Amino acid sequence: MSTSTNICSVSNLTAFLTASFNLNSSSRAASFLCSHISTISHRFSDTTSAIDTTYLLFSTYIVFTMLIGFAMLGAGSVRAKNSKNIMLCSILDAASGAISYYLFGFTLAFGKPSNSFIGGHHEFLALNTFPENSGYDFSFFLFQWTYAITASGITSGSMAERTQFNGYLIYSFFLTGFVYPVISHWFWSNDGWASPTQTNNKLFLGSGAIDFAGSGVVHMAGGITGLWGSLILGPRIGRFNQRENRSSEIRGHNVPLVVLGTLMLWLGWYGFNAGYFLNILKIYNRSRPYYGQWSAIGRTTVTTTLSGCTAALTTMFTRRLLVGHWNVAHVCTGLLSGLVAISSGCAVVEPWAAVICGVVASWILISLDLLANKFHFDDPLQASQVHGGCGTWGLPFTGIFARKQYIIEVYGGENGRPYGLLMGGGVKLLGAQIIQIIAIFGWVTITMGSLFFMLHKINLLRVSADEEKVGLDMTFHGGFAYGAHLEDADWVKPWNQGAETDSRT
Amino acid sequence: MSTSTNICSVSNLTAFLTASFNLNSSSRAASFLCSHISTISHRFSDTTSAIDTTYLLFSTYIVFTMLIGFAMLGAGSVRAKNSKNIMLCSILDAASGAISYYLFGFTLAFGKPSNSFIGGHHEFLALNTFPENSGYDFSFFLFQWTYAITASGITSGSMAERTQFNGYLIYSFFLTGFVYPVISHWFWSNDGWASPTQTNNKLFLGSGAIDFAGSGVVHMAGGITGLWGSLILGPRIGRFNQRENRSSEIRGHNVPLVVLGTLMLWLGWYGFNAGYFLNILKIYNRSRPYYGQWSAIGRTTVTTTLSGCTAALTTMFTRRLLVGHWNVAHVCTGLLSGLVAISSGCAVVEPWAAVICGVVASWILISLDLLANKFHFDDPLQASQVHGGCGTWGLPFTGIFARKQYIIEVYGGENGRPYGLLMGGGVKLLGAQIIQIIAIFGWVTITMGSLFFMLHKINLLRVSADEEKVGLDMTFHGGFAYGAHLEDADWVKPWNQGAETDSRT
Amino acid sequence: MSTSTNICSVSNLTAFLTASFNLNSSSRAASFLCSHISTISHRFSDTTSAIDTTYLLFSTYIVFTMLIGFAMLGAGSVRAKNSKNIMLCSILDAASGAISYYLFGFTLAFGKPSNSFIGGHHEFLALNTFPENSGYDFSFFLFQWTYAITASGITSGSMAERTQFNGYLIYSFFLTGFVYPVISHWFWSNDGWASPTQTNNKLFLGSGAIDFAGSGVVHMAGGITGLWGSLILGPRIGRFNQRENRSSEIRGHNVPLVVLGTLMLWLGWYGFNAGYFLNILKIYNRSRPYYGQWSAIGRTTVTTTLSGCTAALTTMFTRRLLVGHWNVAHVCTGLLSGLVAISSGCAVVEPWAAVICGVVASWILISLDLLANKFHFDDPLQASQVHGGCGTWGLPFTGIFARKQYIIEVYGGENGRPYGLLMGGGVKLLGAQIIQIIAIFGWVTITMGSLFFMLHKINLLRVSADEEKVGLDMTFHGGFAYGAHLEDADWVKPWNQGAETDSRT
Repeated sequence: MSTSTNICSVSNLTAFLTASFNLNSSSRAASFLCSHISTISHRFSDTTSAIDTTYLLFSTYIVFTMLIGFAMLGAGSVRAKNSKNIMLCSILDAASGAISYYLFGFTLAFGKPSNSFIGGHHEFLALNTFPENSGYDFSFFLFQWTYAITASGITSGSMAERTQFNGYLIYSFFLTGFVYPVISHWFWSNDGWASPTQTNNKLFLGSGAIDFAGSGVVHMAGGITGLWGSLILGPRIGRFNQRENRSSEIRGHNVPLVVLGTLMLWLGWYGFNAGYFLNILKIYNRSRPYYGQWSAIGRTTVTTTLSGCTAALTTMFTRRLLVGHWNVAHVCTGLLSGLVAISSGCAVVEPWAAVICGVVASWILISLDLLANKFHFDDPLQASQVHGGCGTWGLPFTGIFARKQYIIEVYGGENGRPYGLLMGGGVKLLGAQIIQIIAIFGWVTITMGSLFFMLHKINLLRVSADEEKVGLDMTFHGGFAYGAHLEDADWVKPWNQGAETDSRT
Repeated sequence: MSTSTNICSVSNLTAFLTASFNLNSSSRAASFLCSHISTISHRFSDTTSAIDTTYLLFSTYIVFTMLIGFAMLGAGSVRAKNSKNIMLCSILDAASGAISYYLFGFTLAFGKPSNSFIGGHHEFLALNTFPENSGYDFSFFLFQWTYAITASGITSGSMAERTQFNGYLIYSFFLTGFVYPVISHWFWSNDGWASPTQTNNKLFLGSGAIDFAGSGVVHMAGGITGLWGSLILGPRIGRFNQRENRSSEIRGHNVPLVVLGTLMLWLGWYGFNAGYFLNILKIYNRSRPYYGQWSAIGRTTVTTTLSGCTAALTTMFTRRLLVGHWNVAHVCTGLLSGLVAISSGCAVVEPWAAVICGVVASWILISLDLLANKFHFDDPLQASQVHGGCGTWGLPFTGIFARKQYIIEVYGGENGRPYGLLMGGGVKLLGAQIIQIIAIFGWVTITMGSLFFMLHKINLLRVSADEEKVGLDMTFHGGFAYGAHLEDADWVKPWNQGAETDSRT
Repeated sequence: MSTSTNICSVSNLTAFLTASFNLNSSSRAASFLCSHISTISHRFSDTTSAIDTTYLLFSTYIVFTMLIGFAMLGAGSVRAKNSKNIMLCSILDAASGAISYYLFGFTLAFGKPSNSFIGGHHEFLALNTFPENSGYDFSFFLFQWTYAITASGITSGSMAERTQFNGYLIYSFFLTGFVYPVISHWFWSNDGWASPTQTNNKLFLGSGAIDFAGSGVVHMAGGITGLWGSLILGPRIGRFNQRENRSSEIRGHNVPLVVLGTLMLWLGWYGFNAGYFLNILKIYNRSRPYYGQWSAIGRTTVTTTLSGCTAALTTMFTRRLLVGHWNVAHVCTGLLSGLVAISSGCAVVEPWAAVICGVVASWILISLDLLANKFHFDDPLQASQVHGGCGTWGLPFTGIFARKQYIIEVYGGENGRPYGLLMGGGVKLLGAQIIQIIAIFGWVTITMGSLFFMLHKINLLRVSADEEKVGLDMTFHGGFAYGAHLEDADWVKPWNQGAETDSRT
């Protein structure tokens, strides 16, 4: 017992208790014991902060790999002559996103005082009040930043290979700094008009829309923005032959980069979906083993995996039937469609429902691709189809398959809360989800659609035909992405001279 | 003290203690104190779940980078014309592995009721009982899934560049869904006949085989499967010239992808080896500082690092002596050989032993490569040599160098437990390790060897010579992995027309 | 209450308390309570170890991605004919670094007994005393190893494309095994003469230099080493035309690898900067919400992000003005310059100061690039400019902008401690920072400068002009990094024969 004497003195406590009919002694015994219990309580509080911050920060790092994923997926999916352009967009999504999110974006989303439409828009530099006076800690800021830059990354894909760089700088700043923060305020802040954690009054059919990690807030928003951008830009030269009504796919130049990007996105999705729990430690004060916040988080990683994998397989076999070969690039897109679709319901559905989610996501992707081809719509990375289309599907999916127990577990609250239609929870949640679709579609159309149209009118949106043919890397970015391979090898000599001059800028 | 009043009321406790000779008051004081202590105990239980799940989930994410690593290593190690094929195999290993592991694979490995040979094989969809009725949580499922897909990933490497895609789909499903889960049941479940955590009765020489993170269960199993696959397929066209008895190495097409893949595998190995502790928080109830489960985990990361690095350096210098140049691709393979070999003993050996492990692994790799060349055995990624050969070495290595203290620390239990031969622990553990080699070799040979032979007989295993020459990407997967670089640059014009048509599928 | 009976027996405690005027019974009550409190205290201690080790190990894994980043950045930034060489250097930095750090490097930095200049230099194999007798745990060793190999990775970049491989092996071993450990001892061990955590006596102006995560210790050290290496090697053939006083940039061969490497470095930097807190759980014994070690860590990730992003944007716009295009490779270098510069002050400055840090870092990078061009200094990866130059800037930046509260929070101690000049903390800290610059510059110059000069004199430093023209991959490393792409495609036939022979080694 010697080691514990410092912690709790048996002899002292014995003396107090022995004389405990004496008020003074009792009081000292009680103080002694309560002081220990109070210390323990503070230690738990600090321990909890440390665990939850560890969980949130590492989740953020994992989400960060999505940035790497988008850059590589984009680079590989376009022609070599435009790969520097799309990678620069990826880096800028993050870099200018960090500055705008620091200056005002975070405030517009989560700042106080707020109303149901927008966060504390009179304030700038929300970080100056961190953490004591804001109710948020720095890790939450960094986490939300990684989501904000994802939306813009999606749009860059839709508009690849033909957008002016100045135009990109403008729309990307507007999207990350204003349009996206407002959407995230609506559904993810405690004050948003459609937020499921609205504290005062769940205005929204008594439910709020449930978009756990952002099938709608992030993916649909980015995808629909890309849809408008692509539509107003028009298809790339050579993609469709109007006279012969013939379309010819423009292949990306580097499939290993596509696969690398897709797999890094998959990895990032674990941070994206499971990380949005924000904390992993909840105290339950009961001895039921195993079950808790940590189990819900684990289940979320499983639903995410199953939806993505099912969609990948469904896409592979369906495409095999349609076009006759097993194409890894299609499988990658299929995988992403399943991951996008499950992001809304990942935390509140059963694993078997995730399998359904993936199958449907895959078929939506394939159908939209066929439609796009038919109507001569050209989105180089299929971002409108994958993120816009399957992100949209994710919302009603949640309205249909969300399980009562899981909704209460994640969003707390009353037993009367609506849940999935097929799970016996009525149509209210499904209604809320559909209103979310309408709201996001409308808001993005009004803001980003108008912006694209305006940029188009003042000739800041699309590059000239000549620039497009030569490629954006040469015309805007100072040269091609690749030096000549093996430029000094013997068998390369015939065209060595050209390579030599080309390898310098 | 004001802040602590809510937590522990001094005045109430004082009152109870003052009157503590009165039975009723004493009972209230006792209830009061015990209720606090009970609450604290529940908080610890929840805190422990949160920490351990955090540890396990992030370890799983780190292991997931091995999937990216295998895809990139494979893509870079084959010729460009087959790179889409091998990357598709990597993705499918994960995707179809997730579905089969969800449907029955996990149950066959860890489901209940089980016998010493196989897990709860009457049940499907084990996740439906998660977590309360299974004794497992979702994070454990996800973690085990990442191991299951590794075995199949190893085999794809051995069989690259000449296997039919239909054949791949069949053997990969059989391996991940049935053959591997049974092996993991034997050595890693609590009921397996050779498991070191067998609770009833350590049948196996009183010890059980020790394969902490799977030199045998994962790597040797995958590598020996690859050995049989490679043998039955035969070497690639052009690899060996039978008449002149001459071999010519077929170089991979992209060394940066090889290095990227290898380094991502290295990163993943930290999750793979250190993650298999499953939890990081153990309560010791003593005040000895520093030492605990966390130290054992840290030591595991260090032994993993030292074995891999030693093997890389040994391979580099040995190859330099043999072939005269410093080849980064060889160093990569050497590094992997050390990582594979240490996976069995990583948690139970000293750092200095890990150095020995790496040196021997490297020489085994080099010797097997020489043998393979001599006997015209062709494994494009050397997976049989690295994973099969060095995975096999990892098992007796543990039987020779496992330290008593560490075995008891990791596997618990009695002092009489056998340990490493050279550490004074007798031959029993070494015997168990050798029986593990025989068991895995036999089981894989009977199941996968037969399957490959059957697929070979019904012509589902190897592609035709024409298909092999053109490459699998063109014949099965809808086109090459690379568009022409810089296809619109001036100096490219001479062959631009060809590139143009080639860049569309 | 049934569940808590095991934990705390109400009836027993009641009996003790009822008879508590009796000394024996009181003693049993006190023992009972104190034993519980003591158990709780031990549980906290173990819980803390588990959390902090989890934090440190996963931070280490994140830092490990910097190794991948350097390998890819290096590979993409050089010409294809030298890419295997630089990637081999990256792997060896880690592999031979692990062995030398295991044998003696760690001991020289942190071993005991130590003096203010060097760690326990009479001892080898520090790990043999781990963890009980060293005061360090294994995770700390692994963490420090990832820093040690970063310094050497920086230098490889400066000396790329023209250094003999034997020369590399020698200087890299000397740098990682001796020169760097001594520097890290000075500033990061508790005994170092300039350490801010010097316990006995803050010799150094009462302050110690503050280099939280190593702008100076790691980046400046590596960069200045590279400066001397580059200077003594001289520029690459073709980089500068002495007669015409004209310089021609030699472009890297693969921008996607440059971007991939840069983004992986960015990811790794979160481990690098935020990880150096070493632990995330501190006990504060107060009920102030939100603020604590975890907040400081979160703030560090935010300052890191803001400095890097600001530098990236500043570089992009400034270069646009100077050279007329938006070059993603420049943006990558700019991003790194901001990350390098903030590594010293990341934990002790405000977010707004990080923005200033980034702007200045970018301009320093651009100015040094102009100077380098003017004076015909050739550093293929601009490592001298980025790591040497901006690493140097990071030190006075901290001396100017470090906030008092944060310094006390991170480094503990007295109120009289100096802090940033502009924050009202006087010139003492700035003075200490400048002495750090002089010390690192001097030490690196004396040790590495002399070594390079000696290697130069005995012709072990630079390859011959012929070898340089053919490329190091062919002359030292057994062949080029790339096989011919699409070597069997129809349009490739014209040069197919050459490719065929080239694809074998």
